[in-house]
Amino acid sequence: MVESTRQRHLISLQDLGDDELSTLIEASLVMKAAATRGGLEGRTAGMLFFRGSLRTRTSFEAAVHQLGGHGLNLNAATDFWDLEARSGSVMDGRAPEHIRDAAEVLSRYLDVLAIRPALEGRDWESDRRDASIRAWAEHARVPLINMESALWHPLQALADMMTVHEALGAIRGHRLAIVWTHSPTPASSAVVHSLLTSSVRLGLDVSVAHPSGYDLDGEVLGCARDIAERSGSSIEIGHSREEAATGAHIVYARSWQSLEDHGNPTLAASRRARTGEWIIDEALLARGSDARLMHAGPVRRNLEATDEVLDGPRSMIYEQAENRLHSQKALLAKLLGA
Amino acid sequence: MVESTRQRHLISLQDLGDDELSTLIEASLVMKAAATRGGLEGRTAGMLFFRGSLRTRTSFEAAVHQLGGHGLNLNAATDFWDLEARSGSVMDGRAPEHIRDAAEVLSRYLDVLAIRPALEGRDWESDRRDASIRAWAEHARVPLINMESALWHPLQALADMMTVHEALGAIRGHRLAIVWTHSPTPASSAVVHSLLTSSVRLGLDVSVAHPSGYDLDGEVLGCARDIAERSGSSIEIGHSREEAATGAHIVYARSWQSLEDHGNPTLAASRRARTGEWIIDEALLARGSDARLMHAGPVRRNLEATDEVLDGPRSMIYEQAENRLHSQKALLAKLLGA
Amino acid sequence: MVESTRQRHLISLQDLGDDELSTLIEASLVMKAAATRGGLEGRTAGMLFFRGSLRTRTSFEAAVHQLGGHGLNLNAATDFWDLEARSGSVMDGRAPEHIRDAAEVLSRYLDVLAIRPALEGRDWESDRRDASIRAWAEHARVPLINMESALWHPLQALADMMTVHEALGAIRGHRLAIVWTHSPTPASSAVVHSLLTSSVRLGLDVSVAHPSGYDLDGEVLGCARDIAERSGSSIEIGHSREEAATGAHIVYARSWQSLEDHGNPTLAASRRARTGEWIIDEALLARGSDARLMHAGPVRRNLEATDEVLDGPRSMIYEQAENRLHSQKALLAKLLGA
Repeated sequence: MVESTRQRHLISLQDLGDDELSTLIEASLVMKAAATRGGLEGRTAGMLFFRGSLRTRTSFEAAVHQLGGHGLNLNAATDFWDLEARSGSVMDGRAPEHIRDAAEVLSRYLDVLAIRPALEGRDWESDRRDASIRAWAEHARVPLINMESALWHPLQALADMMTVHEALGAIRGHRLAIVWTHSPTPASSAVVHSLLTSSVRLGLDVSVAHPSGYDLDGEVLGCARDIAERSGSSIEIGHSREEAATGAHIVYARSWQSLEDHGNPTLAASRRARTGEWIIDEALLARGSDARLMHAGPVRRNLEATDEVLDGPRSMIYEQAENRLHSQKALLAKLLGA
Repeated sequence: MVESTRQRHLISLQDLGDDELSTLIEASLVMKAAATRGGLEGRTAGMLFFRGSLRTRTSFEAAVHQLGGHGLNLNAATDFWDLEARSGSVMDGRAPEHIRDAAEVLSRYLDVLAIRPALEGRDWESDRRDASIRAWAEHARVPLINMESALWHPLQALADMMTVHEALGAIRGHRLAIVWTHSPTPASSAVVHSLLTSSVRLGLDVSVAHPSGYDLDGEVLGCARDIAERSGSSIEIGHSREEAATGAHIVYARSWQSLEDHGNPTLAASRRARTGEWIIDEALLARGSDARLMHAGPVRRNLEATDEVLDGPRSMIYEQAENRLHSQKALLAKLLGA
Repeated sequence: MVESTRQRHLISLQDLGDDELSTLIEASLVMKAAATRGGLEGRTAGMLFFRGSLRTRTSFEAAVHQLGGHGLNLNAATDFWDLEARSGSVMDGRAPEHIRDAAEVLSRYLDVLAIRPALEGRDWESDRRDASIRAWAEHARVPLINMESALWHPLQALADMMTVHEALGAIRGHRLAIVWTHSPTPASSAVVHSLLTSSVRLGLDVSVAHPSGYDLDGEVLGCARDIAERSGSSIEIGHSREEAATGAHIVYARSWQSLEDHGNPTLAASRRARTGEWIIDEALLARGSDARLMHAGPVRRNLEATDEVLDGPRSMIYEQAENRLHSQKALLAKLLGA
């Protein structure tokens, strides 16, 4: 994990060594089988949501309680205020407090700090820097966990890798198709960035299919190719869903917004109007090799994927969601030595 | 309780068998006497409030903690989003998630799910269907508890029946007067619907008094009359507070909105302007037979009832409120096998 | 502590006897050293925030959990409604519930009630009466803790006195300078009122410096002078930061709004425009006697105090913040007999 001057944090799964990642996935499976309870008695896990959440909030707080600790939920809308992130600034603007001070102070009260930062949403080059969560990480003296930034969603990828392992018995050597889906409210690309890099690292051969104009972040893609080369796995990127799905053991459906249109809703809507056919249905799934369906949720039914495949025997969407709970328990136990 | 394909839920007290209801009231009294703690260690109870709450929120979360579990509070205003309830719809509108999926996913994280659904507030025929909470119940794989829908408020009625039993030593054979009260912000009729049907079921003779235009839901009333006939109790409905209160052992004060004006604030205000005399005072209470006063709260003092009766020796409003805690503990212990 | 007819409360530190206050500070230091856990199992502490909070919310909820209890957070924005405070009023206005009833009911569910009341913000003579929290205290049957009213912030002062004791080895006989600082969003004077009165009570010699027009509340000041006389300590008030800081062992930086402009933002802004030089820097701190810096936070960096002094070796701002946790644990243990 990232070493700040004082503390290890989890901003992306690259912050875990290869052995650590594999061990964590195994620990997650054990946690699920044994429904382990306890270990965090008297410890408090702070959650700071600058954007709303159902799955992450609920699974994280339940995980903390099952381990005996207390999840303390801070909501940006009501509980706190704008925070300054720049070093050395004269704070005569809206923000009455610096992230440095908030992070130092919360580190005195909490045993772990999980954050979903806000997105500026103006331009991708700015958002992709993850400035806010990196400022929190710089100053926090307790482990900091990224609950989805602009660039990464490590908690989702951890549950995803656990789900693949659980479904296929192993990860390495299998084929994963990541297929873009149509949505009027597309998700960020954070889930796909974390999914792609951790997949190739663990030995999955990955095909990505998306309409033109929906390229993933270039730097993340470069990093994923480097990892793939080292790991002996492969990445193919194309514009055909059918080609991507062919022979896949997993079809992973996910909407994401165009990074080119990031911060331009008019362009984004115009581009989306041409992609209505990007829906996962039985015909597409049938091209795989007994392909399982994954989706991180929330899913727009009959728009991203049909009821038939979502409720069919090869859908793993609920196991995948449940695995958020178990893998987060394993992660918390590791970070806090429970 | 209602059997979905997978799980028992508590939408109304009719979901409990006669023996179950009686046993639960006795268990509530025992819970109050013994201040039982523990039994839910490691379990998480989710609360989803789509409308605000003070009493229900606080008593429910305290009940869960006293039993050793964790109450996880999700607030619609900040924590989640519009949910789709219709089956098979193409989800290209505002709602990014289907209740089916939210219910299935939350069932993986939580051990029980308590919901106060939103009211559409347009027309009664639509709201009375309780479509949202019934959709949650259809898909939840853990026990679902209704924290007040358009039609029912079983948790209040459970505390109410416990309070009657506690105050009078028994329920059957006593007389209950339900008296409408004036309020600029009338409550829904859910409390009265649950109170009426559970009262006649347990053998109370009930008189209801309200101004014209404030009839209770016809179907609920028919159901209550059927129950009364089976149970050997009686229901009288009239427009005279004095007649209703005469000989009553309990006077239960409650404002409710006119179902005819549901969704029409102008008509509702105009109708209310003619009902200012509907206040409970000592003179009215004196018509009873050593009558106790009940009110589910919040109460508008000196508008719904005078300070004199609310703070007088026969007021049971605080015991009634406290009993929410004990009866919910008994219910949770029953539902979760604690 | 204040004796209502039924219950002791903590509205200000004057509600504690001299021995109680000293014992509490010692208990806080022991609590910090020993990281005591447990004692509040099964107990619920309600927090009612009518204004936002980061430090108080987080430290209080963590304190409750470390003692084994549950912190239940109620937020005025989403969880409840306007409350009536006047006795005997006919409640036909906005408020659907009386503080009397809310306090009585919550006392049935909770074991302690901590409140940060709203400020009217119209005129100081009205706000300084602390009418809302006093109405809560009058009716609560469980201990009520003031989490910052218009007039007092006893939890901050308790941590402050603990911090002084910890830093200097003793309190009596040392010199404290309270220096006003410039801020576009000045805090209330509650922190300074509690700091001043508890400082002189425990034997600190206090110098206060502020620009003209920023006098502290006259009645609080009179009360502090009486205490100082009894205690053998001293109070000096002036307009020179340099004089106040000279020889001080502690420089306590704090912005506060002018009570004269309370409720008049235009006048307040105009007055503030002339005070930009009121910043704490190394030159000012150097006038003290190895002076330590304290600030209750949130602090506007390089406006109220420079990065150099805030991050320097004599800054105690993080210890001071951390001590909120330990002193609140000691207070809760005392109030609840844990």
